[in-house]
Amino acid sequence: MTALLSLPGPEQPTLRARRLLLHTQHQPVVVMRTDCHVCRAEGLSARAQVLVTNGKGQVQATLFQVDGDAFLGHDEVGLSETAWSLLGVAEGDAIRVTHPPALDSLASVRRRIYGHRLDAHAFSAIVGDVVAGRYTDVHLAAFLTASAALPLDEDETADLTGAMIAVGDRMEWDASVVVDKHCVGGLPGNRTTPIVVAIVAANGLVMPKTSSRAITSPAGTADTMETLAPVDLDLAALKRVVEAEGGCIAWGGAVHLSPADDIFVRVERELDVDTEGQLIASVLSKKISAGSTHVVIDIPVGPTAKVRGEDAATYLAARMSAVASRFGLSATCVQTDGSQPVGRGIGPALEAFDVLAVLQNAPDAPDDLRRRAAMLAGAALEIGGKAGKGDGPALALSTLADGRAWRKFEAICAAQGGLRTPPSASHVHPLVASRAGRVVHVNNRKLARLAKLAGAPDAKAAGIHMEVRLGDEIDRGQPLLHIHAETPGELAYALDYAAQAGDMIEVEP
Amino acid sequence: MTALLSLPGPEQPTLRARRLLLHTQHQPVVVMRTDCHVCRAEGLSARAQVLVTNGKGQVQATLFQVDGDAFLGHDEVGLSETAWSLLGVAEGDAIRVTHPPALDSLASVRRRIYGHRLDAHAFSAIVGDVVAGRYTDVHLAAFLTASAALPLDEDETADLTGAMIAVGDRMEWDASVVVDKHCVGGLPGNRTTPIVVAIVAANGLVMPKTSSRAITSPAGTADTMETLAPVDLDLAALKRVVEAEGGCIAWGGAVHLSPADDIFVRVERELDVDTEGQLIASVLSKKISAGSTHVVIDIPVGPTAKVRGEDAATYLAARMSAVASRFGLSATCVQTDGSQPVGRGIGPALEAFDVLAVLQNAPDAPDDLRRRAAMLAGAALEIGGKAGKGDGPALALSTLADGRAWRKFEAICAAQGGLRTPPSASHVHPLVASRAGRVVHVNNRKLARLAKLAGAPDAKAAGIHMEVRLGDEIDRGQPLLHIHAETPGELAYALDYAAQAGDMIEVEP
Repeated sequence: MTALLSLPGPEQPTLRARRLLLHTQHQPVVVMRTDCHVCRAEGLSARAQVLVTNGKGQVQATLFQVDGDAFLGHDEVGLSETAWSLLGVAEGDAIRVTHPPALDSLASVRRRIYGHRLDAHAFSAIVGDVVAGRYTDVHLAAFLTASAALPLDEDETADLTGAMIAVGDRMEWDASVVVDKHCVGGLPGNRTTPIVVAIVAANGLVMPKTSSRAITSPAGTADTMETLAPVDLDLAALKRVVEAEGGCIAWGGAVHLSPADDIFVRVERELDVDTEGQLIASVLSKKISAGSTHVVIDIPVGPTAKVRGEDAATYLAARMSAVASRFGLSATCVQTDGSQPVGRGIGPALEAFDVLAVLQNAPDAPDDLRRRAAMLAGAALEIGGKAGKGDGPALALSTLADGRAWRKFEAICAAQGGLRTPPSASHVHPLVASRAGRVVHVNNRKLARLAKLAGAPDAKAAGIHMEVRLGDEIDRGQPLLHIHAETPGELAYALDYAAQAGDMIEVEP
Repeated sequence: MTALLSLPGPEQPTLRARRLLLHTQHQPVVVMRTDCHVCRAEGLSARAQVLVTNGKGQVQATLFQVDGDAFLGHDEVGLSETAWSLLGVAEGDAIRVTHPPALDSLASVRRRIYGHRLDAHAFSAIVGDVVAGRYTDVHLAAFLTASAALPLDEDETADLTGAMIAVGDRMEWDASVVVDKHCVGGLPGNRTTPIVVAIVAANGLVMPKTSSRAITSPAGTADTMETLAPVDLDLAALKRVVEAEGGCIAWGGAVHLSPADDIFVRVERELDVDTEGQLIASVLSKKISAGSTHVVIDIPVGPTAKVRGEDAATYLAARMSAVASRFGLSATCVQTDGSQPVGRGIGPALEAFDVLAVLQNAPDAPDDLRRRAAMLAGAALEIGGKAGKGDGPALALSTLADGRAWRKFEAICAAQGGLRTPPSASHVHPLVASRAGRVVHVNNRKLARLAKLAGAPDAKAAGIHMEVRLGDEIDRGQPLLHIHAETPGELAYALDYAAQAGDMIEVEP
């Protein structure tokens, strides 16, 4: 079957770029007049996906249409800030707007929905389209949901990991051992990373640590670290910091080590879903792209942690190690206590204060955070040949005690752009015990939700300060925790939730 | 655990409503200044979901933020057309913008993703939130994908159906028999409904037919019918038409018989996914809400139809009948030939011309469409007691032949607001046979995609006019079909696809 004639391509008149100063988060938006000649010629309607091009690049955007002369002239197209910066456009530049190309990789997403497994080629096409911004929220959510409903198997997880590595930058280092650590999450306040990096780098190992922002938790390491120093280092800045200090604590998204992951994470956060396959691909794609040779993985286990039992932890560790080994990465998984939050703070700034207390050997520094960080740093020191088997934790503790870890942390922060003081919340409110007794159970999930309702992680100072731990004997009316919020509205949301959520901290007479 | 003090609710200052004349399709959007006091007090960031209220109602919207004075004053909030009309607001009205309430039903969606079945209570909560506009595209896509990856079982399908009925309007009729028909789709051009309604109503039965717009096809019955008469009848208008003429052919969405379905359909269309459970709930919720007692269901079966084999059709028929009977509805399923498109047109207006030809007994009227419509109308006439068992099709054909069906159709169109002439496309282009031979296979899916790329169903005149049928002997260079498009751009997209899609119509020498 052939077309009788080869038509000339449709004539594509241009529009003049107009900056709207419109903030639409990640979503590129263009606004065009309903009666503009391009909308009419192309048959474009409101909320269509469109391909926007200038001389330099192209971006897929959502089209909104406007009537009348109030905002746009007849020959203008308005661009949101995201569209504006992705295109690198200047006021008045000539812009073409057309239908986007067909999205062939969606056929693989549909196959996956209907229970078929995907191969490396399919994952590669999907991830390529995702990174190019061709997937709408509907497409992204369908892909992630399908990969959760029928969990990714080991081959699929490896293929997804490989596809995510391929679309990002990769770092290379002049060291035979490059160590990294990661916590699979699910435990509020478990902010060991800045301490571990300081200890490990102080002992002469290379640890180019990139961290994510929160997925479903009240804070990710990047959120917390950002209250202490700049974390949005580009690739050159990150290399400069690591070459000077042996380590860094940077946001992974700014260096594009796994740009697909940043997109998946946003949708997972909106769904509050974080599956094993995505978790492994997310972690490993970033570690491998960062040039790591060894990684220590912290798997907190507890009834209300992300991983609820030892069997699940063992399974996750095995899958993680197996997929890592396909890429030449050695993964050491450590199961840790996940029965209650670590330290006292939950939320970016509140966790940062805990980190500072441990590094500075403050008398009231949370001991659980100190011991946990020393254990993980110890494992890294052993892997990296800086301590004999079993001697790592002791070396880590002495590195903290003699101030070398704090000095290294200061130096890393200075190299990243300067140490700064985390913000404090203007609205602080206690939740008190309704009876006397012993603390017998702490619900991590409810505490995390409470901290998020108080504004974490977007509101940096927001979250929870824990006042009790498992086993504590307490009086009636004694504060169990303090809620920190930056606005009265958010404090009210958190208190509403606290009033109706049932016990977050169970006290037995 | 109790809050120590009961805080007063956060103070909620208002903003003045400003109409932006901004078209965002279904998605309500509000635009606020980044520096406005409400954004700061509430901690609202760009693309947050917000609850927008005035004295009269409330709507959940997506927030975009804008810098500077160009578009909005300090005390103004801009509303998109969807937000404006849903709220029923007037220029300058006082508007409050706050965080939306927590979305508890999402916990059920997550449970469903992880493989747990849901009960009636869970479906009811989900559908209630969906209809209230509280689900984002991410949430909607996750729910639908989870219900496709692990298909809804019979109980779940019935519970979803019941939940969808509960949130919509219901119609009641003064007749003991109220008949309806439905085609599960997947066969381009299968536009029997207007003909069936005309025949059945001409014989004195009550048939208040509401139809959907296209989900994944180039035209739904409502799209086609809209080129012949107004279809967006409200409940009162629909009742008036049916009381006067015995039948109508209206768009289901305008009468809110199943408002949840209209939302699900939009997302299914974006994913190009249409699953059995959703299909049954979609069809039955509308039939039951319409007050039908009997429904004839057309299930086209063919290698490239939606239902590909007899076993699948039998299974779907059994499930459909079983769920229908739980609501007191009698469903008669008819398997029909799905090996090639029905009639000659594919696309709203092109199918309408086929319908007119059959009703008007035009000499070139497509005989397959006539026979098919007569078979389905015949089944309805038998169910409704107007014909003996086996005599229905003959009565239907005579109702067409003697002009009664056409006169009834004219009367229905007049009652709906007036018969009109479907539009014709300005760009028509043939695809010709690359060799001589016999037509041995027709790919419905590729033809549907071609018609959609040409602009159908949004462009009413766009689509395909078939020039050959299975078994035809043809010459090299003879037109197989004509592509109809309203714009040169859409014609070019369709031709690009035709050039690379491989044979849509296979010719064997």
